[in-house]
Amino acid sequence: MNNDVVRRGRLTGERSGEMMHFLSSMGADRHLADADLLVDIAHVMMLQKQQIVDPGTAASLLSALLRLYDDGIPESAFGDKFEDIHAGIESFLIESIGEETGGRLHCGRSRNDEVAACLRIRLREDILRQLSIICRLRDVLLTLAESHQDAIMPGLTHLQHAQPTTLAHHLLSYEQAFSRDFERLAQAFSRVNQSPLGAAAFASTGFPISREYTASLLGFDGVIGNTMDAVASRDFALEVLADMAILMLTVSRLCEELILWSSAFVRFISLEDAFCSTSSIMPQKKNPDSAEIMRAKAGSVLGSFMASAVIVKALPMSYNRDLQELTPSLFRGVQDTKHSTGLLADMLASATFDTTRMREEAGRGNATATDLADMLVRRFGLPFRTAHNIVGRAAQKGELSILNVDAAAIEITGTSLSSRGLTTSDISGSLDIEKSLQTKRAAGGPAQVSIVAALEGRKKQLACDRELLDRWKEQIASALAGLIRDARRMVP
Amino acid sequence: MNNDVVRRGRLTGERSGEMMHFLSSMGADRHLADADLLVDIAHVMMLQKQQIVDPGTAASLLSALLRLYDDGIPESAFGDKFEDIHAGIESFLIESIGEETGGRLHCGRSRNDEVAACLRIRLREDILRQLSIICRLRDVLLTLAESHQDAIMPGLTHLQHAQPTTLAHHLLSYEQAFSRDFERLAQAFSRVNQSPLGAAAFASTGFPISREYTASLLGFDGVIGNTMDAVASRDFALEVLADMAILMLTVSRLCEELILWSSAFVRFISLEDAFCSTSSIMPQKKNPDSAEIMRAKAGSVLGSFMASAVIVKALPMSYNRDLQELTPSLFRGVQDTKHSTGLLADMLASATFDTTRMREEAGRGNATATDLADMLVRRFGLPFRTAHNIVGRAAQKGELSILNVDAAAIEITGTSLSSRGLTTSDISGSLDIEKSLQTKRAAGGPAQVSIVAALEGRKKQLACDRELLDRWKEQIASALAGLIRDARRMVP
Amino acid sequence: MNNDVVRRGRLTGERSGEMMHFLSSMGADRHLADADLLVDIAHVMMLQKQQIVDPGTAASLLSALLRLYDDGIPESAFGDKFEDIHAGIESFLIESIGEETGGRLHCGRSRNDEVAACLRIRLREDILRQLSIICRLRDVLLTLAESHQDAIMPGLTHLQHAQPTTLAHHLLSYEQAFSRDFERLAQAFSRVNQSPLGAAAFASTGFPISREYTASLLGFDGVIGNTMDAVASRDFALEVLADMAILMLTVSRLCEELILWSSAFVRFISLEDAFCSTSSIMPQKKNPDSAEIMRAKAGSVLGSFMASAVIVKALPMSYNRDLQELTPSLFRGVQDTKHSTGLLADMLASATFDTTRMREEAGRGNATATDLADMLVRRFGLPFRTAHNIVGRAAQKGELSILNVDAAAIEITGTSLSSRGLTTSDISGSLDIEKSLQTKRAAGGPAQVSIVAALEGRKKQLACDRELLDRWKEQIASALAGLIRDARRMVP
Amino acid sequence: MNNDVVRRGRLTGERSGEMMHFLSSMGADRHLADADLLVDIAHVMMLQKQQIVDPGTAASLLSALLRLYDDGIPESAFGDKFEDIHAGIESFLIESIGEETGGRLHCGRSRNDEVAACLRIRLREDILRQLSIICRLRDVLLTLAESHQDAIMPGLTHLQHAQPTTLAHHLLSYEQAFSRDFERLAQAFSRVNQSPLGAAAFASTGFPISREYTASLLGFDGVIGNTMDAVASRDFALEVLADMAILMLTVSRLCEELILWSSAFVRFISLEDAFCSTSSIMPQKKNPDSAEIMRAKAGSVLGSFMASAVIVKALPMSYNRDLQELTPSLFRGVQDTKHSTGLLADMLASATFDTTRMREEAGRGNATATDLADMLVRRFGLPFRTAHNIVGRAAQKGELSILNVDAAAIEITGTSLSSRGLTTSDISGSLDIEKSLQTKRAAGGPAQVSIVAALEGRKKQLACDRELLDRWKEQIASALAGLIRDARRMVP
Repeated sequence: MNNDVVRRGRLTGERSGEMMHFLSSMGADRHLADADLLVDIAHVMMLQKQQIVDPGTAASLLSALLRLYDDGIPESAFGDKFEDIHAGIESFLIESIGEETGGRLHCGRSRNDEVAACLRIRLREDILRQLSIICRLRDVLLTLAESHQDAIMPGLTHLQHAQPTTLAHHLLSYEQAFSRDFERLAQAFSRVNQSPLGAAAFASTGFPISREYTASLLGFDGVIGNTMDAVASRDFALEVLADMAILMLTVSRLCEELILWSSAFVRFISLEDAFCSTSSIMPQKKNPDSAEIMRAKAGSVLGSFMASAVIVKALPMSYNRDLQELTPSLFRGVQDTKHSTGLLADMLASATFDTTRMREEAGRGNATATDLADMLVRRFGLPFRTAHNIVGRAAQKGELSILNVDAAAIEITGTSLSSRGLTTSDISGSLDIEKSLQTKRAAGGPAQVSIVAALEGRKKQLACDRELLDRWKEQIASALAGLIRDARRMVP
Repeated sequence: MNNDVVRRGRLTGERSGEMMHFLSSMGADRHLADADLLVDIAHVMMLQKQQIVDPGTAASLLSALLRLYDDGIPESAFGDKFEDIHAGIESFLIESIGEETGGRLHCGRSRNDEVAACLRIRLREDILRQLSIICRLRDVLLTLAESHQDAIMPGLTHLQHAQPTTLAHHLLSYEQAFSRDFERLAQAFSRVNQSPLGAAAFASTGFPISREYTASLLGFDGVIGNTMDAVASRDFALEVLADMAILMLTVSRLCEELILWSSAFVRFISLEDAFCSTSSIMPQKKNPDSAEIMRAKAGSVLGSFMASAVIVKALPMSYNRDLQELTPSLFRGVQDTKHSTGLLADMLASATFDTTRMREEAGRGNATATDLADMLVRRFGLPFRTAHNIVGRAAQKGELSILNVDAAAIEITGTSLSSRGLTTSDISGSLDIEKSLQTKRAAGGPAQVSIVAALEGRKKQLACDRELLDRWKEQIASALAGLIRDARRMVP
Repeated sequence: MNNDVVRRGRLTGERSGEMMHFLSSMGADRHLADADLLVDIAHVMMLQKQQIVDPGTAASLLSALLRLYDDGIPESAFGDKFEDIHAGIESFLIESIGEETGGRLHCGRSRNDEVAACLRIRLREDILRQLSIICRLRDVLLTLAESHQDAIMPGLTHLQHAQPTTLAHHLLSYEQAFSRDFERLAQAFSRVNQSPLGAAAFASTGFPISREYTASLLGFDGVIGNTMDAVASRDFALEVLADMAILMLTVSRLCEELILWSSAFVRFISLEDAFCSTSSIMPQKKNPDSAEIMRAKAGSVLGSFMASAVIVKALPMSYNRDLQELTPSLFRGVQDTKHSTGLLADMLASATFDTTRMREEAGRGNATATDLADMLVRRFGLPFRTAHNIVGRAAQKGELSILNVDAAAIEITGTSLSSRGLTTSDISGSLDIEKSLQTKRAAGGPAQVSIVAALEGRKKQLACDRELLDRWKEQIASALAGLIRDARRMVP
Repeated sequence: MNNDVVRRGRLTGERSGEMMHFLSSMGADRHLADADLLVDIAHVMMLQKQQIVDPGTAASLLSALLRLYDDGIPESAFGDKFEDIHAGIESFLIESIGEETGGRLHCGRSRNDEVAACLRIRLREDILRQLSIICRLRDVLLTLAESHQDAIMPGLTHLQHAQPTTLAHHLLSYEQAFSRDFERLAQAFSRVNQSPLGAAAFASTGFPISREYTASLLGFDGVIGNTMDAVASRDFALEVLADMAILMLTVSRLCEELILWSSAFVRFISLEDAFCSTSSIMPQKKNPDSAEIMRAKAGSVLGSFMASAVIVKALPMSYNRDLQELTPSLFRGVQDTKHSTGLLADMLASATFDTTRMREEAGRGNATATDLADMLVRRFGLPFRTAHNIVGRAAQKGELSILNVDAAAIEITGTSLSSRGLTTSDISGSLDIEKSLQTKRAAGGPAQVSIVAALEGRKKQLACDRELLDRWKEQIASALAGLIRDARRMVP
């Protein structure tokens, strides 16, 4: 038989293998199969509670479903001859316990609400895992920052040596960015964890179902009100993909730096061999391949978002099969993000930083010229812009010596500064990198006092985020454990 | 002079007009100029409070800035010879009050934190206005839904007549979707409304600034901790664009339906002439052009997001000039969304719905066949899947008459249903559209009782959202009014 | 052993399974494995010809490679412990014939040129197959057009009934669009079918290789000159993906129409059951699911392009591992396009058009109002714009009767037209749909004479395109057959 | 009057300013206005030739059009009250020469074919100018390559020092890539330069027009056959945007390198001040801002492509107003590409390369380790893989000394190589960078002999491309000059 239980009544004609494969969502449904069993179990429990099926039928259905839950869904249910795993499981039930009982499973629902529920159950798990990984990544960054508070390095703008900073300050900038990714994804979680069940095809059903009951059995935070919206909307998936793409773009920036820092030009970092590869012909090479692939994955996740966004463009209400094509992109984006960020945490944790090289480079390129200009402002009451221009002109002439500063000052203001008391030691004092750094004491700056405060604040935030996460995990785990326990009780 | 005050010290050489235009951000800076004045004013007040400039200098600077605030920024400050409006305003100050005073404005800051602050100030306004428009759009949808509770229409899946629903139910699905857009954008607001000021180039500054003070003067919710992150990150812009793209995708779906409903095939709606155009050669035409352009704008906003996302990919820390190129895409996305959603609300509010045509179409295509199957389940205890197959087979044969149902039942179960008591009036009863609708009483369904409950709930939610919005608007307006008032007081 | 032959010399440390999987390109390499064998065989033949390996070594290597060619590559070569299939095959050779011989395969090349060669060989096959499918699709459209020259249907603009046309004219518009897709992809073929072999890592090699010889053995059209460009560029892949995305966008438009035409509102077409699905709860439904998925695939292919484009953004020379991440997107885009267009051809060929419904709709909405305006121009010498306005005003009043036309003419010009001789039969004559159509005789118009000419021209073009395609297929098939034949001769 | 000549007949009601602005295409139409005059002139000449208007009318229309051509289109024609420039010009004509004459202009055409014609005329000019810029960019690269044949530099893979190459070799890789961009865009030109005129709304017209005549007057290469395709397709625009995006991605890679080379870590290049900026607070900075903006522009152009692609997704036939929204993205992409590539050529031509630093870096990181391995293959008959592993292991131990090589050889093969005759001078000979380079003599490699050959070949290709370009420019210029000349002759 070339047709599944859903098709056989209405449609005729054999379908080609290519056609079946094209229509089938089985590839992505492997991600959904476990969730589908949970949905089926909760649905049956609700059907009995609402007296839509009798206790005997419910017990038989639950018994068969629990067997699948315990032993795993048989490979045959994933065959291309089924349009999706929902038809696969229903067909399996009908074959194993007969249509008289198995044929009652789909009462009061549709694949439209079923698939939306499975997607959301699976995606909330993915989000929680991703949130955990983000926490781990932030933890690694905080730990590295804590142990590199004294590691002075050149801060760059435009890839030019700009001003000195510390590795701690640099790493904390990423930790702070990733904490916003946590926030965004956590806020998306609340929109994802809503139950579409009971929406049926889009118009709900005439059976006296309870939408609230299935929602609570499955650990959802609530019910998606309007039933048409419940089956037709995928903004929850687009939002999660956008959040992941934004996260991955920050990953791409960090990886760009790791690659740069690994190069012979810079040599600020040495990544562990496990994250590197060599060349098939250049035996001396040690390449930061993992960081390159993570950087590239930002493109892949953006592509997943873009594919999904284009798919929903201009779709009329309510459900259209186009939505099926969104699912593989969603899961690909989720997987790519998971792997990249998880391995990034490992890679960072195992890397070695060459703080000597960093300190060496921190002194290059007149990195403290701004401090010199600031000193001229304070010492001689010069307007900042004038001081800035004097130092800029001096830099153009070569090193920031008293000769060049004086020559610049004369060109710009008509007077030398040494004549007003500027000395060589004034200049070298203001150019001193360690001193310069310790003046940057504003909140979030690189001075040690600011870093210490920042570390404390960020650790508290991380602990607080982890607490929220644990609460959510516990809430869902406990709901699902209760679901299975109650289902088992209903089977004689 | 071909160079501005920032360049003149360090760089030589004339730049070509094309080059100046290429480097200049002036196009987008028109959106930022007002915000820049506010930032300048707050910065000067902070400089004086922290005793970085003396009261006389502060008064002169504030006086000049308030003149610009009152009279508008002169066109000359937007010239291509300035790289950006920040240099334009500083140059104007230096020209009008002299470098001795005007040259002190930029003390303790950099364009990097300045531009980030302007962007955020402007963007928070854009977000608040967009949130207002979303509320108005939801209000229109709720009002239309309220007055169309009885308007029965065909609900479609796959653009096929599926089950009857009501226009109210249909419109409420969009209102609910737009309320999630409100949520997302409101959550983004909190991440946008954070002050980067004091970060300077990225390493903060040696001057004893107060980041908290400028933040509070400008009505920010807080300070972005790490100063490198403060100037280098644009995830706030990407998030807002993603939220707007997702909103516009829902707009594209609604517009697709309005276009479809306007077509001669469907005729469910008549849009007001003001939103339509005719043809330059087909004099009888009335085309839903506005809805088409709104649909297209979803593409434009997605393009803005994509451009911005690609721009930040793999940028090393901290500031890179690439970020300047993101700004025009950001504002284009914001404008496109504002215009589209605002006009969509007007267009919907002024449209006329043809409920007679809707009712006519609701009866087509065996729209209540599911109800017939459900009745067979209830009446004869058939498994749903069996009943579904019987009705499917009957539909294949033509109309859902007792003859066809019996023939199908015999083929599938071996027994006729009329032999078990099924009558013609059973069938026509279960196929009755009005009755069918009233059975869909679950939360969020199309039965009148559910719609009434939904309307009440949604109105409450809208009121609550509007309250939040008003609070935010008030908070910012009051901070900015205070800023100007205090600044005026400091000018003798 | 956790490391492959390439890593073992330079790098230490065990890699985790997740890490190995993350770095491995094996997923996409399944598409490349066959090409890799051909490249290996050609490389060995060149090494011997250039006396870089001796005949005995060459014979052993070829013998082992031909065994893989004949029997298939063993599953073990695809293991995650290898970074890619190239390392997998080399390791297999070393295990089976020893390092003394197997270790000589990689002489004078690198994986960088090897993988680029495999990609191009595989992609040229994919292009040729896609070109065949496009020809088949065009053939179906031409055949359908030929048999529907008399099928009058409403032509739409803005989804509004605009002017009558014929199904033939409508279908020919798609055929013409697809012929440009053929052109683009055929032009891309010439850029794809160039050999990068001999570029090695990017700087070529000190061994006296012959780049021309391997190119000719493998049926390439030529050699990519600069060796750095040869390994670092992926514009050929981006171009192919862009071409496929553009093709799929036209597919999405055609599918949008097929879905529309399948709806109960329109009923112009009936798709074969094999391409449709039903609902899991609405037994009467027959949904055009295949067309919906094809429409969605346009999004997926655009996503593949976007992912690939972002990946190459801002990569420095020469090879970076990021490029590996592009390959799966490339092949996904290629597969999605292949399946969608192939099945689209089948779906169209088996569809039934309801020309009665089409004719019925062609008369609606004053579709020939332009003809009436044109007649007024010719008959009364009115300026077109005046005539257009008169007819527009008349349409606003209701039907295009002589009363309404006269009333409109008086309003606009002050004179009635009936007073100048306009009769009811003038009006009905000019509004006659069949007559109207036959006046549209310009090249490419819907009049029968134009359609006949168009059909003839398009068939010639298709034949010509197929000829070119056959020539290319033959050229490559013959080169590869020669390669294997010659390789066999070298094995004693 | 709030409505234009096109709307006034059919539609009533005042439109708000925002609505008029939203519907208006005037922003982008500034790019099209000149083309529109040419189209109008050609159309009138055809109308007279085909005796659709009489000579007097034609002369009056042409006279008015030529006045606009000579004096410029008045600003009033661009007002927001017109939907587009086509309505603006027609309204202007009617106002200035009366509806009796001016109202005859639009006979036998529609805005749909008119706007498509204007787009194509404007775009072909843009393409030709872009092709010229590409040629200039290639010329700069060839000139720089010619004068830097001896400039040895490190070739990188994975941003790791890999093998030595020359600046000439490196620059030639970009020249070759850009020559493919030339090819692609030149092939697109032929698809763009086709006339849609005569298609009218989509169904052509009943007037006896000549599509061939207008096409030839306007210098088109031919006529787009099917009239529905002629107005509904925008694949020509998508193709051009895709080509420009691919070009800009290569630009982003080159700019990434220029930025890297400008950094204090690398110092291979010094860009002219005109292309750089300094910091507003760090007076010593000289930042490669132009290169950064060019790199970012790749994102903007990709965004333009994406916006345009999404806009056409799933649009039914034939014309939809959505297409109007594509035009601004098209021109933005075209402008961004033009400016970026033109200034890139200037920036490269004026840059100074530090070949001493390049040579210094070329020797780092065991860049010729592959040559050592190759020597071991040749000298001792080792399999390449074995030699590769020995050298890899030696590199792991530190420098490539005979001690380390021997130790590695013993570990891997059990025998030392010095015992087989390997000497220190063998090693240093094979590691010699200059010698190594000269062995890379294959076509396209970095040896001087290959570079000389490549330069010769590339120059020939460039000359040939320029010839083609000149031919096209001449063809179009001559057609348009003829058009104006003939039009003038028709005015008494």
